[in-house]
Amino acid sequence: MSGLEFFRLQTREEVLARYQRFGPVGVEEVGLGEGILRVLAESVAAPEAVPGFARASMDGYAVKAEDTFGASPGLPQYLQIIGEVAMGEAPRGRIAAGRAMRLPTGGMLPAGADALVMVEYCSEHPDQTLEVRKPVAPGENLLRPGEDVASGEVLLTAGRRLRPQDIGLLAALGVTRLTVHRRPQVAILSTGDEIVPPEATPGPGQVRDSNAYLAAAQVTAMGGIPVLKGIIPDKYSPLREALAAASEEADLILISGGSSVGARDLSLSAIRGLSGSEVLVHGVAIRPGKPTILASLQGTPLLGLPGHPASAAIVMQVLGRPLLERLMGLRKEVCPRGDAIQARLSRNLAGASGREDYVRVRLRQEEDVVWADPILGPSALLSPLVKSDGLVVVPLGVEGLTRGEAVMVELFVY
Amino acid sequence: MSGLEFFRLQTREEVLARYQRFGPVGVEEVGLGEGILRVLAESVAAPEAVPGFARASMDGYAVKAEDTFGASPGLPQYLQIIGEVAMGEAPRGRIAAGRAMRLPTGGMLPAGADALVMVEYCSEHPDQTLEVRKPVAPGENLLRPGEDVASGEVLLTAGRRLRPQDIGLLAALGVTRLTVHRRPQVAILSTGDEIVPPEATPGPGQVRDSNAYLAAAQVTAMGGIPVLKGIIPDKYSPLREALAAASEEADLILISGGSSVGARDLSLSAIRGLSGSEVLVHGVAIRPGKPTILASLQGTPLLGLPGHPASAAIVMQVLGRPLLERLMGLRKEVCPRGDAIQARLSRNLAGASGREDYVRVRLRQEEDVVWADPILGPSALLSPLVKSDGLVVVPLGVEGLTRGEAVMVELFVY
Repeated sequence: MSGLEFFRLQTREEVLARYQRFGPVGVEEVGLGEGILRVLAESVAAPEAVPGFARASMDGYAVKAEDTFGASPGLPQYLQIIGEVAMGEAPRGRIAAGRAMRLPTGGMLPAGADALVMVEYCSEHPDQTLEVRKPVAPGENLLRPGEDVASGEVLLTAGRRLRPQDIGLLAALGVTRLTVHRRPQVAILSTGDEIVPPEATPGPGQVRDSNAYLAAAQVTAMGGIPVLKGIIPDKYSPLREALAAASEEADLILISGGSSVGARDLSLSAIRGLSGSEVLVHGVAIRPGKPTILASLQGTPLLGLPGHPASAAIVMQVLGRPLLERLMGLRKEVCPRGDAIQARLSRNLAGASGREDYVRVRLRQEEDVVWADPILGPSALLSPLVKSDGLVVVPLGVEGLTRGEAVMVELFVY
Repeated sequence: MSGLEFFRLQTREEVLARYQRFGPVGVEEVGLGEGILRVLAESVAAPEAVPGFARASMDGYAVKAEDTFGASPGLPQYLQIIGEVAMGEAPRGRIAAGRAMRLPTGGMLPAGADALVMVEYCSEHPDQTLEVRKPVAPGENLLRPGEDVASGEVLLTAGRRLRPQDIGLLAALGVTRLTVHRRPQVAILSTGDEIVPPEATPGPGQVRDSNAYLAAAQVTAMGGIPVLKGIIPDKYSPLREALAAASEEADLILISGGSSVGARDLSLSAIRGLSGSEVLVHGVAIRPGKPTILASLQGTPLLGLPGHPASAAIVMQVLGRPLLERLMGLRKEVCPRGDAIQARLSRNLAGASGREDYVRVRLRQEEDVVWADPILGPSALLSPLVKSDGLVVVPLGVEGLTRGEAVMVELFVY
């Protein structure tokens, strides 16, 4: 009975919902220099305030603001200069009424002062008298302690992929060891009796293993660590053994497929032959990508990719990426940050009855308009993919899209 | 005379034009598995056609197309099955008139056949007779040799950053060694007497070195290799020596600056003190980022970053990235691939008189509209940068931008 269920095509949403059973991989500690693009496993609360002391945000003079009130070019105020604050040192002395100290940008505000007059509005006279031609308000031209980050404030939460500015903030906070999720290890098993390694010269009927290398590069670009397991003979026992070994080592298994029905059936048998395995999805209502398999091998997710290169690449983008990101512990931002951009469709597109249709497009700018040019071609070809920048979806139940229509283009990860 | 020229602010375009004197770094050879995101130094012409032979793009039967003409469910054609093509092997036998062979997806077309009938339109009878209920045209359901890539065709040109699908194509072509540009080595010198390493506890008036770590992370994200050279004392000789050493090792030098005027003047003196050095730019008409320096140290480019963290980060994005990409040999695609996206401005923005104004914005989606929310705050703060997704430019000579206006948001590299 339940065997038959697998042949009902599942929608993309149904497939994504099944990912909930797979949790993120474990954590490791890395130094700040290795933190870029890693995913935080724990939120970081600021251990101290930044800045830690009141600092000048301009070059000028530390003063009591009230000493400058009423100053103007016609009627300057005069203060006595009692010294200079050196960068990186505590000020020597305090500011009493009528006094001022030279204060460079970033320098520490001396006690007693509550504002900085910019150097542009001042002149020094030979007798250490400062002429001030503009009033300042208390706090002006200063950074106050904690203005950037308050002590205890949480700016970086668990699940965030660290960006350069986040690394800068962590450095400022003195947080030099980071708890991040491991990069998921992704085992890639090539199947298909017609497949030979890229460095081999194919004999009659043979082709080179492009899909595994394509998938590996996608995994790297998405933040995982691909492990190419080589070409497994299209026989039950070797495939079953390779799957069993991979399920113990890897966080995710990809079967980079033989394109024939026979190869796919063999994959299914081998998966089912492992104890604790469960086929969750066999067939997805997307085009290309229908013969995709999702399984759990004792808790390790397995994605069986279609055999045609373009189908495999699109399935990795549309279904593999969210799975990998889940394993990475990544919490996606709500707002598009260049994952998708709007464009105008340059020709009519018919949809695929009963399936979401993913059409490869190339972007082309013409004055202010970004056009999405569909790049058509069978899924067995690589070159249309090489010429494309992303995907336009004709949704389920929509007959087609019209030339000139505004569409969202889901960009390839690179 | 020429010393005074440096104080004229140069526009972004003028700065970018000066990059032409700096050529791309040298090349190295890497394997296919290391090729992802590397920049091709030489165009790749296909050494052979892909596919190399006529292949089935569906599961079905190899036939002579003319044997199927006129076939219909009511009046099928009958052919004799003479065998099966095994995956990865040359077909055994040839197709004469009235004959057919089973042919799985990806299998090699036997001699004599010129089309494939899909399995869905056929039935096999016990006596090895094939019932065909639909005609096929010559070439139907086949990939012809060279349909993906013709021999000699150039799909990947010098200057291209290799994407996953490019790696897949190279694997299919058997191109397993790639000539790519080296990743540029970027020496980062921290200056400023107030600066201590991130792992130190700052004393009074001291701050941790966030800018160098931020710049290093940006360099990594942009494809370079950062080399942190540590904190150089704000004295002429040590700085000059550090610059001399860096100019011999690195492809690009960044001075991550002390924020005071004194520190900047010292950088300029140290640069000018090196033989064969030339200060090309001292002051750029952008806000923030005015005190940026561009110099050539015997042909090695040097970018002197402003001292405020946000200024430094924005200068790296706006001026550092194009310089680094030039050194990487990257030829940018004409069309935006998510580098910038359109959004609607959520409040009025005043421009900076006489300068391009770069305003940090956060993206926020509200139904179908993507809003750009300006994140204001002094350049001395990191947190507004952490909260932002990219930059909106108020161009030179424009008084300001209006709430509701459509703007392009230049996205941060991550």
